[in-house]
Amino acid sequence: MSRKIYVEQVTRTPVEEQQIELVERKGVGHPDSLADGMADAISRELCRAYMKEFGVVLHHNTDQVEVVGGKAEVDFGRGEVVKPIYVLLSGRATMIAGDRVVPVHRIAMKAARDYLSRTLRNINVEGDVILDSRIGQGSTDLIDVFTRSKEMPLANDTSFGVGFAPLSDVERLCYTVERELNSDAFKERYPESGEDIKVMGLREGDRIVLTISVAMIARKVPDIDHYISVVDDIKEEVERIASGITEREVEVNLNTGDDYERKAVYLTATGTSAEMGDDGSVGRGNRVNGLITPNRHMSMEAAAGKNPVNHVGKIYNLLAPRIAQQVAEEVAGVKEVYVRLLSQIGRPIDQPRAASVQLILEEGTSLSSIQQDVHSIVDENLANIRRITELFIKGELTTF
Amino acid sequence: MSRKIYVEQVTRTPVEEQQIELVERKGVGHPDSLADGMADAISRELCRAYMKEFGVVLHHNTDQVEVVGGKAEVDFGRGEVVKPIYVLLSGRATMIAGDRVVPVHRIAMKAARDYLSRTLRNINVEGDVILDSRIGQGSTDLIDVFTRSKEMPLANDTSFGVGFAPLSDVERLCYTVERELNSDAFKERYPESGEDIKVMGLREGDRIVLTISVAMIARKVPDIDHYISVVDDIKEEVERIASGITEREVEVNLNTGDDYERKAVYLTATGTSAEMGDDGSVGRGNRVNGLITPNRHMSMEAAAGKNPVNHVGKIYNLLAPRIAQQVAEEVAGVKEVYVRLLSQIGRPIDQPRAASVQLILEEGTSLSSIQQDVHSIVDENLANIRRITELFIKGELTTF
Amino acid sequence: MSRKIYVEQVTRTPVEEQQIELVERKGVGHPDSLADGMADAISRELCRAYMKEFGVVLHHNTDQVEVVGGKAEVDFGRGEVVKPIYVLLSGRATMIAGDRVVPVHRIAMKAARDYLSRTLRNINVEGDVILDSRIGQGSTDLIDVFTRSKEMPLANDTSFGVGFAPLSDVERLCYTVERELNSDAFKERYPESGEDIKVMGLREGDRIVLTISVAMIARKVPDIDHYISVVDDIKEEVERIASGITEREVEVNLNTGDDYERKAVYLTATGTSAEMGDDGSVGRGNRVNGLITPNRHMSMEAAAGKNPVNHVGKIYNLLAPRIAQQVAEEVAGVKEVYVRLLSQIGRPIDQPRAASVQLILEEGTSLSSIQQDVHSIVDENLANIRRITELFIKGELTTF
Amino acid sequence: MSRKIYVEQVTRTPVEEQQIELVERKGVGHPDSLADGMADAISRELCRAYMKEFGVVLHHNTDQVEVVGGKAEVDFGRGEVVKPIYVLLSGRATMIAGDRVVPVHRIAMKAARDYLSRTLRNINVEGDVILDSRIGQGSTDLIDVFTRSKEMPLANDTSFGVGFAPLSDVERLCYTVERELNSDAFKERYPESGEDIKVMGLREGDRIVLTISVAMIARKVPDIDHYISVVDDIKEEVERIASGITEREVEVNLNTGDDYERKAVYLTATGTSAEMGDDGSVGRGNRVNGLITPNRHMSMEAAAGKNPVNHVGKIYNLLAPRIAQQVAEEVAGVKEVYVRLLSQIGRPIDQPRAASVQLILEEGTSLSSIQQDVHSIVDENLANIRRITELFIKGELTTF
Repeated sequence: MSRKIYVEQVTRTPVEEQQIELVERKGVGHPDSLADGMADAISRELCRAYMKEFGVVLHHNTDQVEVVGGKAEVDFGRGEVVKPIYVLLSGRATMIAGDRVVPVHRIAMKAARDYLSRTLRNINVEGDVILDSRIGQGSTDLIDVFTRSKEMPLANDTSFGVGFAPLSDVERLCYTVERELNSDAFKERYPESGEDIKVMGLREGDRIVLTISVAMIARKVPDIDHYISVVDDIKEEVERIASGITEREVEVNLNTGDDYERKAVYLTATGTSAEMGDDGSVGRGNRVNGLITPNRHMSMEAAAGKNPVNHVGKIYNLLAPRIAQQVAEEVAGVKEVYVRLLSQIGRPIDQPRAASVQLILEEGTSLSSIQQDVHSIVDENLANIRRITELFIKGELTTF
Repeated sequence: MSRKIYVEQVTRTPVEEQQIELVERKGVGHPDSLADGMADAISRELCRAYMKEFGVVLHHNTDQVEVVGGKAEVDFGRGEVVKPIYVLLSGRATMIAGDRVVPVHRIAMKAARDYLSRTLRNINVEGDVILDSRIGQGSTDLIDVFTRSKEMPLANDTSFGVGFAPLSDVERLCYTVERELNSDAFKERYPESGEDIKVMGLREGDRIVLTISVAMIARKVPDIDHYISVVDDIKEEVERIASGITEREVEVNLNTGDDYERKAVYLTATGTSAEMGDDGSVGRGNRVNGLITPNRHMSMEAAAGKNPVNHVGKIYNLLAPRIAQQVAEEVAGVKEVYVRLLSQIGRPIDQPRAASVQLILEEGTSLSSIQQDVHSIVDENLANIRRITELFIKGELTTF
Repeated sequence: MSRKIYVEQVTRTPVEEQQIELVERKGVGHPDSLADGMADAISRELCRAYMKEFGVVLHHNTDQVEVVGGKAEVDFGRGEVVKPIYVLLSGRATMIAGDRVVPVHRIAMKAARDYLSRTLRNINVEGDVILDSRIGQGSTDLIDVFTRSKEMPLANDTSFGVGFAPLSDVERLCYTVERELNSDAFKERYPESGEDIKVMGLREGDRIVLTISVAMIARKVPDIDHYISVVDDIKEEVERIASGITEREVEVNLNTGDDYERKAVYLTATGTSAEMGDDGSVGRGNRVNGLITPNRHMSMEAAAGKNPVNHVGKIYNLLAPRIAQQVAEEVAGVKEVYVRLLSQIGRPIDQPRAASVQLILEEGTSLSSIQQDVHSIVDENLANIRRITELFIKGELTTF
Repeated sequence: MSRKIYVEQVTRTPVEEQQIELVERKGVGHPDSLADGMADAISRELCRAYMKEFGVVLHHNTDQVEVVGGKAEVDFGRGEVVKPIYVLLSGRATMIAGDRVVPVHRIAMKAARDYLSRTLRNINVEGDVILDSRIGQGSTDLIDVFTRSKEMPLANDTSFGVGFAPLSDVERLCYTVERELNSDAFKERYPESGEDIKVMGLREGDRIVLTISVAMIARKVPDIDHYISVVDDIKEEVERIASGITEREVEVNLNTGDDYERKAVYLTATGTSAEMGDDGSVGRGNRVNGLITPNRHMSMEAAAGKNPVNHVGKIYNLLAPRIAQQVAEEVAGVKEVYVRLLSQIGRPIDQPRAASVQLILEEGTSLSSIQQDVHSIVDENLANIRRITELFIKGELTTF
C-alpha cells in the first residue's frame, strides 16, 4: 500500500525573518526535565527487561512522573536538603505475562534513581529524594498487540508528531549553551554550577538577548565574592559560545534575580530548584527537539515515558524532526521545512493517515523540481520507522 | 511610558487554506482537564480567601495536580470503583502571613473536591477519590510583591502568552461539540454519557473527520443494544451540531475502539477514564483557548493553577487570545491575527517587554490603514490587564 | 468433643491489696484511640457490606491505621489546622469474590470519615484530614474459610485472649471519668472540652492521684481567664464523679503541663492532639476492656480492625473479659478472676486449645465448691461464641 | 533527695508453677519487629548526629513506622516482589536548632534502609521497598529541655516501665530459638531460611509445645523435596537447642500451615511476610525484653524509636528488666522479682515517682533479710540511669 504523503509549498515569513522570536530551553536539571528524564529512563529499562525476558517489548506507558519540590537550607559554603524532594512515579506497565512476572516497580525505581544520580552531580538520591511508585498494571488486552513482534505495530491512538528544520540562530544558541554548560568538561572547570540551567533567548530584529539562570552549588561557593566571580566567568564563557554560533549581537544576562547587596543569590544544595519548592512534571518542558519554540508548530504530546513500540505520540514526534532535518540538509532550495505525521488508531505505524510536509522554498526553487526527493525521504523514513524504537532503547534518542 | 507594541504583516497560508489541519479538544472529564480544573479551582478559592482575609491576593502557584488512575469494575448495568483515583495536589501557597493563618490545605482540598463533584455527575468523590495534599509554604520573600495592592504587579518571570483569531471551522467544531455534549441539557437527554469526551478533528482539503470518544456510564446502560442505540443517537446529535457550524462535509466517528461482537465497549462507573488507569496532569491538555492546535503557535505554559496576579504565564495566555479576538472582530480586512505577549521578570505586567501582533491581511487591505486601530486595541487591553485577574477570580475565565 | 477448660486456684495478692497500682485510659479522641476506632468502624462496615452482598462475612483484617499528626495554629478564640492530619488505612480485605466486586476502599474511607466526624465534634474531616488507603486484596485462599457460613469458623491463628474481673477502684475511676467527660451531656455543658482526654490513675496505698489531660477547643476559649475557670470546673466535676466511685481519697490534677503565666495552655482547633504532631496507631492504646493495666495480665494483640469471624486475636479478647465478669458477678466467693483463651490455628473457634481460669478466692471458699459453676459459664460462653461476632457487627462491642 | 523505692513481698504462684504458660517471640524479620528495628535505628542515628553537631541529643521521637505489605510472586526456585513493601516513617525530630540544620529525613531514611539491608539478607531495599518519610519538626519548646546537657533530664511524661526476672523455661526457649535461627552461623548452614521467624511456646504442666513458623527463601528452594528436607533439618536443630535449655519434654511444630500435597508451603522472595501483604507497626510486637508474656505484667509502651534521653517510656522499660535481672542474680532467696518504675512528668528521671519491687521469695527467706540489698541495687541503677542512654546510642541495647 503506498503511503499517504503530502508535500506542499506554503508561503510563510521564515522565522529568521520575523521581527520577534522567542525560544526557551530547560536544562536537564530543571524539575520538568528531571520528570521527563526519569520517565524515559524507566521506559528504556522496561523495554530492555521485556526484551530480555520475552524477546519483545510489552505494553507500558510510564509517562507520568511528578516531582514535588522539597526544602533546603543553604548558605555560602554549605547546603542541606531538609525536606526531601518527593517523586511520584505513575503510569502503567505489564507486570505479569503468562506465568512470568516482571518486577516493574523495582526496575522503575532503579531506573529513576540511577537517572537522578547520573544527572545531578551533587545530589544524594538516597537521602534527598523520596521515591514513590503507584505504577499500575497495564490493561491485559493490550498485551496481544505487542507479542506479535515480527509484524509492524499498530498505532495505539489517533495522534500526531511534528518537526521542523533547520534550527534558527536563537534555537541553536539556547540548545548549545545549555548542553555546553552541563557538559562534563564545563563542570570540571566550574564545579560551582549545578544542572538546573534555564536558557531563554529573545531576538528582536538582529539583536539577541539570552537570559540564563544557573543554580549554583552552595557548598562550593564559600562567599559572595566567589559567587560573583563565577557568574562573571560563566557569562564570558557563554559569550564565547555564542560568538561561534551567530554573527548577530548577543547580550547575556545571568541570574538576573540575584541581589548582591543583600547577598540573596541563587544557591542550592543539589543543583536543582526542585530542592526549594519547584515542582516538575512530564511533558511540561522541552519538546522532543529539546526546545520550546512558540514561533513554530509544536505538539502538546508528552513523549517522555511513552512506549517506543506503538505509541505514535512518541514515535512520530521523534521521527518528524529527523525527516525535517534530512530534507533541510539533503534537498537544495529549501528554506524551512515543517513535517507533521498523523496516525490513526489501529493502522500500522509505518502507514500514517497522513504525512504532511510543508516547504518554504528559496526564490527560484520550484516545488515540482524537488517534490519527488522529499517524498522519497519521507517514504524511506517511514519504511524504517522501527529503527526509532531501536535507537530509543539503545539510549541514542532523547525526548526533551 | 509608552508600551512596546509591534504590529507587523506576515505572509502565511491561512490555516483554512492549508491542506491538512488537525485539532483536538479534551473534554472536562478527561484526566488532564480534571487536573487543570482542580488546579484552577484551588487558585480561585485561595484568591477569594486571601482577599477576604487580607484585602489582597497573596502569593501562590497551585499549578501541579497529578491524577493517578484507579481501577474500576464495570459491566452493563453496574459499575464500581475498586481502587480509588489518587489525586496529589502540590504547588505552593502562602500559609502564614504576619500572625494570621490561612488554612491552605483545607481550602485546596475543598476546592478540588467540589470541582470534581460539580464536573463529574456520576462520581462519589468521598469514596472514589483519594485526595492528598503536599502543597508547600510559598517563599516568604514573595509576599511583599503581593501586598502592595494598589500598584501594578510586577511580572514573576520572563515568559510569554500567545493567542490567535478567528477560530477555523475545525476548531469551532471540536470546541462546540464537546461543550454541547457536556451541557446539562444534553446530559438530561443522555444520562448514559459521561464527561470524559475527547474530540479530534482532522480536515483533509474540504473534508472533515471528527473522531470522538465518549465514556458511557455503565450503570445506565443495561445492555449492548441500549449502548448501540445511544451511540447512534449521539452520532446524529453531533452531525446536527456540525451542520450548524460548517458547510464542509463532516464524517463523525464515535467510540471507534468498540467491538460490539465481543461486547467490549467504552463503559465506566464514573464517566472518566481516570477510574481505569488513565493518568492526568496539569498543562498537558488543552491550551487556554480550550484547544490543541498543532497548526498554530502555542504556548507550552501550564496556565491552570498559577496565580492570576503576577504570573504572566497565566495572565498573558488569558489576555492574548482576547486581544486577537477583538482585533479579528473589530478591524476589517484581517484574515488571521496572532498575538504574542512577552514579559520580563520585574517589569509591571501592563508593560510587556514586547507585544507582537502578526497579521495576515485580506487582499486589498494595507497594514498602514489599520495599524493604529490594532495598536489601540492592544494598548487598551494592556492598560486594563488587571481586569483579567478580576474575571478569573469571579470564575468567568477558564484556562483549558 | 468436650472443651478443654481448666479452672485453677492461684495465690496472688489481689490488685486492690497491692501497695501500688497504675492504670491508664486513653480517651476516644487520643490519636491511638482514633486509629483503633477507625479500624473497627471499617471492619464493621465491611462486615455489613459482605453480609448484604453475600450473606456471609468475607475475609478481611483492617487492623492497620496510622495517624500522622498535622500542624495547627491556635490561640485564644481561634484555631486552624494548617497541615492536615494524614491517615493511612492499610490491611487487607476481599475485593472480588466470584464475579462480584466489593468497593472496599469506598466503604473503608466512608467508615473512617464518618467515625472521625462522629467522634470529634470540632473537626472538619474534609479539610483537616487527608485520608489515604493502601488496603490490599486479601489472599484468595482465605475466602473459602468464610463462605461455609453455617459451620463454626476455624481459628485463623495460634493466639490468645485475656480478661479479668472485677475492676479495681482505680480502673473504674479511669474508665468512668473519661466516659463521662466525653459524654454528650458533658460536652453540652463544657463545649470547651475536646475529646482527646487521657486519664492516668496512680494508687499508693489508699491514696489515688488522677492525672488528667483534656484538649481544649481554642475557638471556644476567648481568654486565659475563661480557660482557668473551665479547668477548675472540670476538676470539680471529676472530684464529684470520683466520690461516687470510691471511698478512697482522690486527688485530681488537670492539664498539669499548663503554664498560666506564659499563657501556654492546652488549646487545640479540633479537640485532638493529632492536629499538633501527635501520631497514633492501632493497638498501642487501651486493651479491649478500655484500659491499660500494668498490674494485670494483658494481651498485646491489636484487636481493633481484625475480622470478628475467625480472628481469635479479636474474638477471644472480646470474650475473655465477658466470661471473667460473669464469673465475678455470678459465683460467690471469688475475689478476682483471670481468664485466658488459647486458640490453635485450624481448630473451631468454640474449641480453644485451652481455656484457663485462674481464681483468687475469698477466705472460706473452696475451689471444689465452685469449680463446676465456673466451668459451666466458660462452656456456655464458648458454645455461644458466635454471638460475639454478631454483637460486634451490630456495634454493641468496642475493643478499646 | 532520697529516692522513693518500695520493696514488698507478694504472694503469687510463680509462673513456672502455673499450669498453663504462653510466650511468644516475633523474630527480627517479622513486620512488627522490622518497624521496631527501623524506629530504633533512626533514633540511634539521630542521637549520633545531634551529638556530633551539638554535643547533646536534641528532642525527637521517631516511634511511628508503618510497614504496609507488598505483593510477591514466588515459586520453587524463584521469587520477585511485584508490588513493593511501603514503609512510612513518621514521628517528630528537631530539624533546625539555632541557625544549624539537621538533615533529619536523610538520616532517617538512611538508617531505615541500612537497617533493612542488614536485617533481611535477601531483600533488595532499593527495589523492593518504597520508603516514605512524613517525619515532622519537633515542637521548638522542647529543645530547651535537651540542651542543658549536664543536668539530669526531666521525665517527658507520666509513664512507667516494667521488668521481671528470671525468665522461665518457655521464655528462654522462645527467645533463644529465634536468636539461634537468625544467627549468621545458622544462615550459613540454612540459607533457605528467612528472618521472619515466629516462635510461640505453650506449656501445659510440664509439656512444652513450640509452634514455629519460618519464611523460606523461594530462590534457594528448588523443589518440594528440598523444602521438606530443610524443614526436617531445622526441626531437629530446634530440638537440639531446646534440650540444652530445659529438661521438660518439648514438642516442635514447624510451618504447620504447609500443605505438601498441594505444594502450598511458606515461600518468600525476601524472607519476610511483609512482601505478601502482612503489615507491621511499632509497638505491636515484642516487649523490651524480646518477648510477649501474657502471664506477666507488661507495659503497653512502644519503646522503639522514642528518644533515649528523657522519654521514660523507653528508658524505664529498658532499665526495669536490668534491675530485675540483677536482683534475681545477686540476691539469694528470690524466686521471682517484678520491677515497676513510675515517672512523673517534669521530675528528674533518676527520681521516679515510685520504684516498686515485688518479690516472690523462696521458703525460708524473709523480706527483711534482703530488703536493703534490693534497695541498694535499685538506688544504684537509678543513680546511673544515664548509662542506659549511652548504651542505647552505642547500639548495645535493643527494645524488641
